[in-house]
Amino acid sequence: MMISDMNWMDVERQVARDTRCVLPIGSVEQHAQLSLCVDVINSERVAREAAEPLGVPVYPVIPYGMTPYFTAYPGTVTLRIETLMALMRDIIASLRRTGFNRILIVNGHGGNSAVGALGQELMADYGDISIRLHNWWNAPLTAAKTREIHPIGTHANWMENFPWTRLAHAPAPEGEKPAPDMAAIRAATPQKAREILGDGNFGGPWQVDDEAALELWKTGVEETRAAIEGPWPELERS
Amino acid sequence: MMISDMNWMDVERQVARDTRCVLPIGSVEQHAQLSLCVDVINSERVAREAAEPLGVPVYPVIPYGMTPYFTAYPGTVTLRIETLMALMRDIIASLRRTGFNRILIVNGHGGNSAVGALGQELMADYGDISIRLHNWWNAPLTAAKTREIHPIGTHANWMENFPWTRLAHAPAPEGEKPAPDMAAIRAATPQKAREILGDGNFGGPWQVDDEAALELWKTGVEETRAAIEGPWPELERS
Amino acid sequence: MMISDMNWMDVERQVARDTRCVLPIGSVEQHAQLSLCVDVINSERVAREAAEPLGVPVYPVIPYGMTPYFTAYPGTVTLRIETLMALMRDIIASLRRTGFNRILIVNGHGGNSAVGALGQELMADYGDISIRLHNWWNAPLTAAKTREIHPIGTHANWMENFPWTRLAHAPAPEGEKPAPDMAAIRAATPQKAREILGDGNFGGPWQVDDEAALELWKTGVEETRAAIEGPWPELERS
Amino acid sequence: MMISDMNWMDVERQVARDTRCVLPIGSVEQHAQLSLCVDVINSERVAREAAEPLGVPVYPVIPYGMTPYFTAYPGTVTLRIETLMALMRDIIASLRRTGFNRILIVNGHGGNSAVGALGQELMADYGDISIRLHNWWNAPLTAAKTREIHPIGTHANWMENFPWTRLAHAPAPEGEKPAPDMAAIRAATPQKAREILGDGNFGGPWQVDDEAALELWKTGVEETRAAIEGPWPELERS
Amino acid sequence: MMISDMNWMDVERQVARDTRCVLPIGSVEQHAQLSLCVDVINSERVAREAAEPLGVPVYPVIPYGMTPYFTAYPGTVTLRIETLMALMRDIIASLRRTGFNRILIVNGHGGNSAVGALGQELMADYGDISIRLHNWWNAPLTAAKTREIHPIGTHANWMENFPWTRLAHAPAPEGEKPAPDMAAIRAATPQKAREILGDGNFGGPWQVDDEAALELWKTGVEETRAAIEGPWPELERS
Amino acid sequence: MMISDMNWMDVERQVARDTRCVLPIGSVEQHAQLSLCVDVINSERVAREAAEPLGVPVYPVIPYGMTPYFTAYPGTVTLRIETLMALMRDIIASLRRTGFNRILIVNGHGGNSAVGALGQELMADYGDISIRLHNWWNAPLTAAKTREIHPIGTHANWMENFPWTRLAHAPAPEGEKPAPDMAAIRAATPQKAREILGDGNFGGPWQVDDEAALELWKTGVEETRAAIEGPWPELERS
Repeated sequence: MMISDMNWMDVERQVARDTRCVLPIGSVEQHAQLSLCVDVINSERVAREAAEPLGVPVYPVIPYGMTPYFTAYPGTVTLRIETLMALMRDIIASLRRTGFNRILIVNGHGGNSAVGALGQELMADYGDISIRLHNWWNAPLTAAKTREIHPIGTHANWMENFPWTRLAHAPAPEGEKPAPDMAAIRAATPQKAREILGDGNFGGPWQVDDEAALELWKTGVEETRAAIEGPWPELERS
Repeated sequence: MMISDMNWMDVERQVARDTRCVLPIGSVEQHAQLSLCVDVINSERVAREAAEPLGVPVYPVIPYGMTPYFTAYPGTVTLRIETLMALMRDIIASLRRTGFNRILIVNGHGGNSAVGALGQELMADYGDISIRLHNWWNAPLTAAKTREIHPIGTHANWMENFPWTRLAHAPAPEGEKPAPDMAAIRAATPQKAREILGDGNFGGPWQVDDEAALELWKTGVEETRAAIEGPWPELERS
Repeated sequence: MMISDMNWMDVERQVARDTRCVLPIGSVEQHAQLSLCVDVINSERVAREAAEPLGVPVYPVIPYGMTPYFTAYPGTVTLRIETLMALMRDIIASLRRTGFNRILIVNGHGGNSAVGALGQELMADYGDISIRLHNWWNAPLTAAKTREIHPIGTHANWMENFPWTRLAHAPAPEGEKPAPDMAAIRAATPQKAREILGDGNFGGPWQVDDEAALELWKTGVEETRAAIEGPWPELERS
Repeated sequence: MMISDMNWMDVERQVARDTRCVLPIGSVEQHAQLSLCVDVINSERVAREAAEPLGVPVYPVIPYGMTPYFTAYPGTVTLRIETLMALMRDIIASLRRTGFNRILIVNGHGGNSAVGALGQELMADYGDISIRLHNWWNAPLTAAKTREIHPIGTHANWMENFPWTRLAHAPAPEGEKPAPDMAAIRAATPQKAREILGDGNFGGPWQVDDEAALELWKTGVEETRAAIEGPWPELERS
Repeated sequence: MMISDMNWMDVERQVARDTRCVLPIGSVEQHAQLSLCVDVINSERVAREAAEPLGVPVYPVIPYGMTPYFTAYPGTVTLRIETLMALMRDIIASLRRTGFNRILIVNGHGGNSAVGALGQELMADYGDISIRLHNWWNAPLTAAKTREIHPIGTHANWMENFPWTRLAHAPAPEGEKPAPDMAAIRAATPQKAREILGDGNFGGPWQVDDEAALELWKTGVEETRAAIEGPWPELERS
Repeated sequence: MMISDMNWMDVERQVARDTRCVLPIGSVEQHAQLSLCVDVINSERVAREAAEPLGVPVYPVIPYGMTPYFTAYPGTVTLRIETLMALMRDIIASLRRTGFNRILIVNGHGGNSAVGALGQELMADYGDISIRLHNWWNAPLTAAKTREIHPIGTHANWMENFPWTRLAHAPAPEGEKPAPDMAAIRAATPQKAREILGDGNFGGPWQVDDEAALELWKTGVEETRAAIEGPWPELERS
């Protein structure tokens, strides 16, 4: 149930029944030949499909995240840590004011992991809410399914290549990309990292057959749904 | 042309041809019986439809804005001024890094007007970009068209009621809402403001016939398109 | 009644009787041949004259505001948005601690309008105070009086030219200045804006006869006085 | 020469001749029976009188400073350290942009001393300006003159009691106030500090004869004038 | 080579030869019966022992980190994310000013991982330095050695129990602690987390024999030394 | 009693008995031929030796402070004011959460004095704690003892030269350094200040005989111990 399909009276009724909600977060950044919005599209979609049968509201996706290492690639947008933290603080304060006290952040981008630390900080500050960060693509079952399909599932390779993240005008290259020197990339400035990394894929096949891709997706949706279901602590309504 | 339909190579080619881009910004807040996301939906949509024939890229909409006065209505999310400013600073820094130096912010929410002041500040700081804030709903031609249709076009009334912002399960009330005491509302705390304001419509008809509504929309799209076209100053590529 | 004419015991007695106070805010920025402090002088003076017969205390004027677009003119001082917001937050917190819970901000400078948004934010945060922003020069009656005197009343023209904002050594030019291209100015960097704008007057006569000017001033004082009087909500003493 | 008596062309000419300027800073806080604005009045006045014969411009006084320990006294306004620092950063950046690179901050309030540390930080950051903090009342000659008149010259006693800081309706008590337990006050919360401190005078006579007071003032003006004169380092125009 | 054993002339000579340096970071937080400073002690010590034969300078350890989830345990100190980020920004700016442009942060506490994201951000901002985060206890070889000794090596259990982190007056309990419900702990407020977690050990033996512990330590020192050695990118001296 | 020698149960018992604690703070900066860490070493050591017989816990020293004026000397680390303030805010909030409400900050560096202003601000904000700043080297008795030994006791001269701050490889120069022009240094940029100041000693003998030095140290320890003892206000446990 998307917040965009609700008005304020709907939310008032909903939160009286169930205090859970979902907040997806992505990143606009290079994904080789794929859409710059892969992480926005996938985090929003996995949250929506997971939440739907549960009737838990999903807030609009935060499209921008932290990705300084890709700033040499045109189109990429990166936030400073303090900015993303401020944004999350204010949104979570608003969700809590509405009465949502069990909040699942569905994250689609590895660079956003500091959001998990913020969640712990806010739980300590407020003392009456629970916030959990769900990195949908590397939750245990989804990561296992990825490895089952191909040993290398990583940034901008087949693992993020779904019918809805591909661009018709930019088909995936054939074959597999050799693994770049990731240790060198991590220690390099963005311009140098781009020189090493080339198109942006972190190695492995650019695409696998759709049957496998959709199987991975289904696992991701189911595991995200389980995360929405719990575990949640008992909390008093504030 | 949505950024979500582009990869980084597309943007690299585009910015070499044309340094304009569009950034829509909305708000998640009460809109009476309409979607909580009216301002998100409309700012994204008007930007997309306006930009399409021009081939100017549209970045993902920032869904959250400043709306402290509606915080007594469930579902509403508000950002502190400093947070929205930080978010805009970082996004604009990223757009500039990519090479976009003529940026139109298409705003769908009156409470976000401080973004205009920030644009002026960034233009002074950088000295090599132009940023303009376009409040699509109250730009001169669109505001005139609104007055032509009905003397009262305001928050959550017919002026924001389009086929894509209505909820099937929550039809508009019949008739016209008497104008609430806006001076009292502005001086009141959110809880008191809600008591005065009731469902959230600022007065006037909840809905007009679709022909009139779509005529208003068409004016808004055209005026936004003209704003994308200019005026823009001559700027050296940084 | 100026705070500078009171000691702490005076304020203690005053706030027990009446919880209203006034905070003027200006800007140090180019005003063509007029004083750099036009907005400081006028906001302080209009607040003082308006408050005097009501016995409502007026705090010292904040002389610095947001004016990034004039930074190419020597002498101009501009604050970042976050700075002005922090300043207002702290001052208002102090006024509230003293017991003032109905605060009228008398603003003399268009660039400071984000202060209004902050007022709304603080009213939502505290829940026990009322803050209103009064832009004295464009309140309805004062703006109507301006149009009555001359169709163009704007920055640094006759509308801000009073006996107390003129400099003896720098008389106003004769005649009327043609309106500059304001759309181009708004989209330009400060250096380019100065090239277009020249002396800094936004167009129209530099000066009118004193009788008209003082009539405008009288309207401004009376409308500001009415704003101090209300409307104010009922508020419990915190 | 007050900035309020100058327009932007005046400043442009002045800074071409001489890159010094003066920025006074005060505090609105309890001063026993004296005006709440003692530190605003004195810092502005001493700066003005000192600068006048030198023709060095004096910017409008910043009326608000850091005084958390007096917050239990009505009328007092205090800024957080970060706020005052942000304000000073932005103002100094603006002065530097205009071309002023030798800036004397004339301070009238002990609680503002962190401004001196900020000056050092900005000098290190910019590398092309000089900023000096002048605490006018405890500069060596003025402090010596104070001791010469009476061994105890301190907050809100005779040392701050001038014809222009007195209130006609609130004459000074006769005699001398016994010194309160300052160590206890410094370790106490504001409420407790007020209980110990009573009217707010830190001890000693509330007033001395005007001849002595004006002699002290004259010393303060002269020593402030000497501080405006130098020493200043050689600096390249930026 | 500790910075405390160097003066500024020593550093000037050193940085002319080798631009690497090491910055350890810890946390003051509950570690069951062990010292509250386990993460401070170990990160400083592993950095020192690793750097010594290489002659690379080690800066004083930052003793405080992010640990909001342990705030119900007395003695624990936690920083907000923004605070730790500000601290790291300023220290790294200072190291870079001195000429150190290859900086290894040796981290002893899992909660500090946002420091890695900051390093990436600073590398993008500066474009002329390399910053790497080394979590000494879970680097690949050290983590493998841990698993070799006992399948559960975790917070406050044997893995952090060394002769220099034990307290003579508080011997380790005998035996193994059953694994607590970590999913429940992560979703809980600090008070509730303490109730579940008890003494603070995350499960497994409180202590193993010293031979095994010191073997783990030796692996940690060697792997940290290897991290100081590289890989580092080629960087121009700024 | 060092916090590093305590576990959380120890602190829980301690704070039930006595709510005092000590927080030392230093600076990493040039000290001529002495260790870059003089202020870290001394503030930690004086706090430890002073607290030991009282059984009051001493938290780990904050090694980094504010020293922008020495940034032209290699190895120096300086924090912005806002950073040090944020750090102190968070640490003090944590100490207060544990139950420590009488906090002595033992400072070893003159540039950190803004910490005293912050303490006053936090006391006003919380209303239930007492924070005192103790500048150990210029407390009255210690400063008097310094003057007794030699009229000039200042930065990096004999006054900071103890067996534990000397470096074996860098003996002190013989004789006395002529006093540099401190007024010129304070008004200068860091690079220029280094040119004037040379090795970094602010004048006077680089070293005196150990008997005198240790006598000074003993006075500093005793005066710091007295400061830990009080005066402290009566405070309710929060």
